[in-house]
Amino acid sequence: MDSRFIWVVLFILCAAAGLSSAAPATIDSPDGSVRVAFDLEEGRPKYRIERFGRELIQRSAMGFVLKGGRPLQGPFEIGSVHTRTFDETWVQPWGEKREIRNRYNELAVSLVEKGKNGRRMDVVFRVYEDGVGFRYEIPAQNGLERFEITDETTEFALAGDPAAWWIPAYNRDQVEYEQLYRRTPVSAMDTAHTPLTLETANGLYLSIHEAALTDYAAMQLAPAGRNTLKADLTPWSDGIRVKARTPMKTPWRTIQIADDPGGLITSYLILNLNEPNALGDVSWIKPGKYAGIWWAMHLDLATWSTGPRHGATTENAKKYIDFASRNGLAGVLVEGWNRGWDGDWTVHGDRFDFTRSARDYDIREVAAYASEKGVGLIGHNETGGAVPNYERQLKEAFALYEKLGIHTVKTGYVANGPRLQRIDGKGEKAGEWHHGQYMVRHHQKVVEEAARRRIMIDVHEPVKDTGLRRTWPNLMTREGARGQEYEAWSPDGGNPPEHATILPFTRLLAGPMDYTPGIVGLRFGPERPRNRVNTTTAKQLALYVVLYSPLHMAADLPENYEKYPDALRFIRDVPVDWEDTKVLHARIGDYVTIARKDRNSGDWYLGSVTDEEGRILEAPLAFLEPGVKYTAQIYRDGKDAHWEKNPYPLTVTEEPADASGVIKMRLAPGGGQAIRFVRTRP
Amino acid sequence: MDSRFIWVVLFILCAAAGLSSAAPATIDSPDGSVRVAFDLEEGRPKYRIERFGRELIQRSAMGFVLKGGRPLQGPFEIGSVHTRTFDETWVQPWGEKREIRNRYNELAVSLVEKGKNGRRMDVVFRVYEDGVGFRYEIPAQNGLERFEITDETTEFALAGDPAAWWIPAYNRDQVEYEQLYRRTPVSAMDTAHTPLTLETANGLYLSIHEAALTDYAAMQLAPAGRNTLKADLTPWSDGIRVKARTPMKTPWRTIQIADDPGGLITSYLILNLNEPNALGDVSWIKPGKYAGIWWAMHLDLATWSTGPRHGATTENAKKYIDFASRNGLAGVLVEGWNRGWDGDWTVHGDRFDFTRSARDYDIREVAAYASEKGVGLIGHNETGGAVPNYERQLKEAFALYEKLGIHTVKTGYVANGPRLQRIDGKGEKAGEWHHGQYMVRHHQKVVEEAARRRIMIDVHEPVKDTGLRRTWPNLMTREGARGQEYEAWSPDGGNPPEHATILPFTRLLAGPMDYTPGIVGLRFGPERPRNRVNTTTAKQLALYVVLYSPLHMAADLPENYEKYPDALRFIRDVPVDWEDTKVLHARIGDYVTIARKDRNSGDWYLGSVTDEEGRILEAPLAFLEPGVKYTAQIYRDGKDAHWEKNPYPLTVTEEPADASGVIKMRLAPGGGQAIRFVRTRP
Repeated sequence: MDSRFIWVVLFILCAAAGLSSAAPATIDSPDGSVRVAFDLEEGRPKYRIERFGRELIQRSAMGFVLKGGRPLQGPFEIGSVHTRTFDETWVQPWGEKREIRNRYNELAVSLVEKGKNGRRMDVVFRVYEDGVGFRYEIPAQNGLERFEITDETTEFALAGDPAAWWIPAYNRDQVEYEQLYRRTPVSAMDTAHTPLTLETANGLYLSIHEAALTDYAAMQLAPAGRNTLKADLTPWSDGIRVKARTPMKTPWRTIQIADDPGGLITSYLILNLNEPNALGDVSWIKPGKYAGIWWAMHLDLATWSTGPRHGATTENAKKYIDFASRNGLAGVLVEGWNRGWDGDWTVHGDRFDFTRSARDYDIREVAAYASEKGVGLIGHNETGGAVPNYERQLKEAFALYEKLGIHTVKTGYVANGPRLQRIDGKGEKAGEWHHGQYMVRHHQKVVEEAARRRIMIDVHEPVKDTGLRRTWPNLMTREGARGQEYEAWSPDGGNPPEHATILPFTRLLAGPMDYTPGIVGLRFGPERPRNRVNTTTAKQLALYVVLYSPLHMAADLPENYEKYPDALRFIRDVPVDWEDTKVLHARIGDYVTIARKDRNSGDWYLGSVTDEEGRILEAPLAFLEPGVKYTAQIYRDGKDAHWEKNPYPLTVTEEPADASGVIKMRLAPGGGQAIRFVRTRP
Repeated sequence: MDSRFIWVVLFILCAAAGLSSAAPATIDSPDGSVRVAFDLEEGRPKYRIERFGRELIQRSAMGFVLKGGRPLQGPFEIGSVHTRTFDETWVQPWGEKREIRNRYNELAVSLVEKGKNGRRMDVVFRVYEDGVGFRYEIPAQNGLERFEITDETTEFALAGDPAAWWIPAYNRDQVEYEQLYRRTPVSAMDTAHTPLTLETANGLYLSIHEAALTDYAAMQLAPAGRNTLKADLTPWSDGIRVKARTPMKTPWRTIQIADDPGGLITSYLILNLNEPNALGDVSWIKPGKYAGIWWAMHLDLATWSTGPRHGATTENAKKYIDFASRNGLAGVLVEGWNRGWDGDWTVHGDRFDFTRSARDYDIREVAAYASEKGVGLIGHNETGGAVPNYERQLKEAFALYEKLGIHTVKTGYVANGPRLQRIDGKGEKAGEWHHGQYMVRHHQKVVEEAARRRIMIDVHEPVKDTGLRRTWPNLMTREGARGQEYEAWSPDGGNPPEHATILPFTRLLAGPMDYTPGIVGLRFGPERPRNRVNTTTAKQLALYVVLYSPLHMAADLPENYEKYPDALRFIRDVPVDWEDTKVLHARIGDYVTIARKDRNSGDWYLGSVTDEEGRILEAPLAFLEPGVKYTAQIYRDGKDAHWEKNPYPLTVTEEPADASGVIKMRLAPGGGQAIRFVRTRP
């Protein structure tokens, strides 16, 4: 039976259901495995989700509380019910997979408030084999134009009490998303950021997140009774959650479903729920690797501020450009290049000047040198959280960068405390959260302005990714988690070995992450006595494959790479733009193995990382092209390698490989393995 | 570095360690991932086990308590330390894999009690990549000849508190091993049977069991303080655990280790620790499928006892022989064929006569008919637990069977209550547990007598398997768990769907199981209103591949198979003797997919089963022979199939397949999938 036929059947069922507000309207995924049922319970909208006939999300509330008006929660009547089916395959201009199939069945229910002058609200569900997205649409209507949302009452009433991997929201002691993941039952959770990853008692994996967040507040998930989570929207400084006008569409609330944690990684539901490319020609957008004046500051070998140890000097920048050029790296990041770094810039972020260089840094000279060497300079825009100051300079700054041939900008929002600095830097006390509607709008402004100037964006201290790169493909990557810099200075000793085995199943489900891997000098000098990198060398290499990002840093100092040419070779070789992605092993918090196909050469790359446990894993090579001979260049943990006791040993070997083979991998405790499969050209 | 070199290094280290009783003697697995350390703590022997430098078993006690003498637990001195390395590949005459590599490093420590007339005891460790075996050897010595063990003090002090899948020992309400598995932390366990399967917090899987149990009591595992389990030997009726004489070797205590639950399934450590084939020519031993007069009794459509509904009549047996002959099944089991079934045979098992037929069953006529049809008759020896009665008749009975061409015997030990009936049936009150030394010796007697008569043995209500089939390859299979007959009559509604997703990781780790799959009449008549088979049809087929047994039953009634020719075709086709075994998906209690290669044709078969959850699983076909084209005959759950609501729908399709492909499988709730990959012969 083809999907068209299913759709027709569903249409009839649903349209019929729509006539009676008692019976639920249901819609199945095209393959029939996932079902959403919507109904009104005493006029209040409710949805639930089943998979293979078993309830995953029990009947859950929907709606809004508005300022100065009745809650938009019912009692409603169903005005109309529409279903449609959709199936297309679209091409990512860059990404972890070239061709993505977007195939869903949609149920759209128009609700009308009972009584006179009833307000209208629509709910739209899209049901995929790999999960569900739904959103609210509030149409233009008399009596509801501008309005303020004080609460979104969407609930996720989980069947059972799944295990959850989560980070707390509103944590005043941490830089927002930059926390280690906790694992507890849902019943023991505090309010958490999304993506929230869940494992049910029967071995299903879910991720609750959102898609297409462009003019709304980010959604956290708050406990709301027995195994129920409720939408918690980041407020404005005045307590309002969302300031809106009709017609309005909320972001999609998403629930991804997989039988194996690897299935969450290869689910593209978040991207599918975003709008297609809005930029047209994007041939100017080029994924790439970059070096940078950055790690030295984290090791306290140099400073962002001016002075005798200033990192961003013309001379030093040229040294990094030479290094990048020699090693085929596309870009060089220079942090601390501009005016405003002296003093406490997390308090005085409004002093940042985004067009004027520090005295010992000649941006024109450096840009010209980079251009001559075939390297792209990456502009750095740290705002210190002073967003209005940045916005005021945005047009001028980006115009300058375009003129200088700077096609990538890394933004930063390090604020003094959990909220961003005063909005306007004029002495007002109010501060905005990183993830409220104010900042969502700001990031959108930056991306759109960047697109006008053909600039790619890499956001640090960002709002979480919700798949916007589909619509604005110049929005390349973000931080938004504990990255590798914590290894350099964190008082808690850095990221424990399991961190990188959790990220692919949590943070990375949102989208690419600029983790800044590739540290090969795993132990530091006397300047950092209590820190070290908590991985082996091979694991650093594997991170390039395991943690997807279209911009990946070769984060270490050039002088360290010169000491470890074997490791550098893999970092030179590994691409950042992929034709396809396969997950071979997936155990959240324990180990993960991912294979990806280079978009350009057709070579395959494999990365595998483990936590504190050593592992022996078998990787079947069925992902390789049948009939093609490859040479496997294997970068494995050397003898007695150990993240804590003996991190350096790396053994590099070559062997023939083809699709019928199996590679037995031995990962040291805290170790990994990276493999390049080079097509043998006849 | 080759293993020989490692061995030399170890030898030097260990021999040196042997000179000082303070430093531990250590031995690593040939690949270096597993380490055993042995030392004396205030003279008391202790061992511990590490993997990749992390402790799995903390320092744990060893030794014995003897009746009428001092405990054999120290204080000892180390007399000598020997290490050796071993590496061979041996061939299973039949099995789940033809060639098995047996590669280990061994550490043998000779201990001498301190003081005058010190007794001697050796401990021997074999360390494999996939785990550890160790045993005690008590050499011949003056002053220690006959002795009685009242306790074995071996401990397994687990690091952490792993999750355990277990069944309780000494459960007076259940037929011994025939229980549903529980999952609790080790800290919440009662005394449990082995194999005991464990999952550590960091995602390692362990199985604690024993190997080569031939003249000793079976070992259970009893809680002994924080996350420590202690050997608990099944006692004789007089309370003694083991009656022994020197020289004596205990069974091997085994700890298997894998990074994935599937690794436990493809670990052959238990077989490797058994002695090689003791029978010489075993070409007469032939794995095969069988039908039988059996399920009808479980459905109460026929009786074991004589009377109008007697199942084992000459006429009925011929009907089953015809069915087996038509469908290429090797054997026919006839239960209730002999004298002794009338009355309560669980009390009067001593009335069983193993050479004389019931009046309406002519064993000679049936045997001749079977022989003429090319089918092997399977003798059934239910003892009712009256073991001496059976032993008295053993030689005569097996001689008769050999004469009649009966080359397989299914034994049974259904006793009235948790212990076997009086030992000698002469009114004595004492009874023996199913798993004490008395019964271990009995089963050994039966197997050896059977081998003399070229008879294969299938034991029901057995002592657990400890790999003896390697030494006595006529010991084919056993029950020893809740089999499918519980679906026919169990007051608790039968085996829940998850049962078959737990067995491969628990009971089946011991060895083959006669689960009696292949029921296609999934709903019963009015005679069984409260029971049904808790699977779909496709899952019944998949069980032939998932649950390994060299003798597998086509358990349903011939008239049911006639109604479902599609299902019957797979049951006809599926072999029971394998060249190789691969585990594709493994999640204990949730789902499991296993592929096996037919030893004769080179065709591959795949079985996948799930619990109550429907699943979408991808099976990469890398196990297929590269370059060979196959036709995949796929037996999948039909539309809307559901174990409870709609179990029958089965869809059979064919498609081309090769090693580079991936099959996406959709398993219904409580369902499964079975695939035959037929080599396309040019």
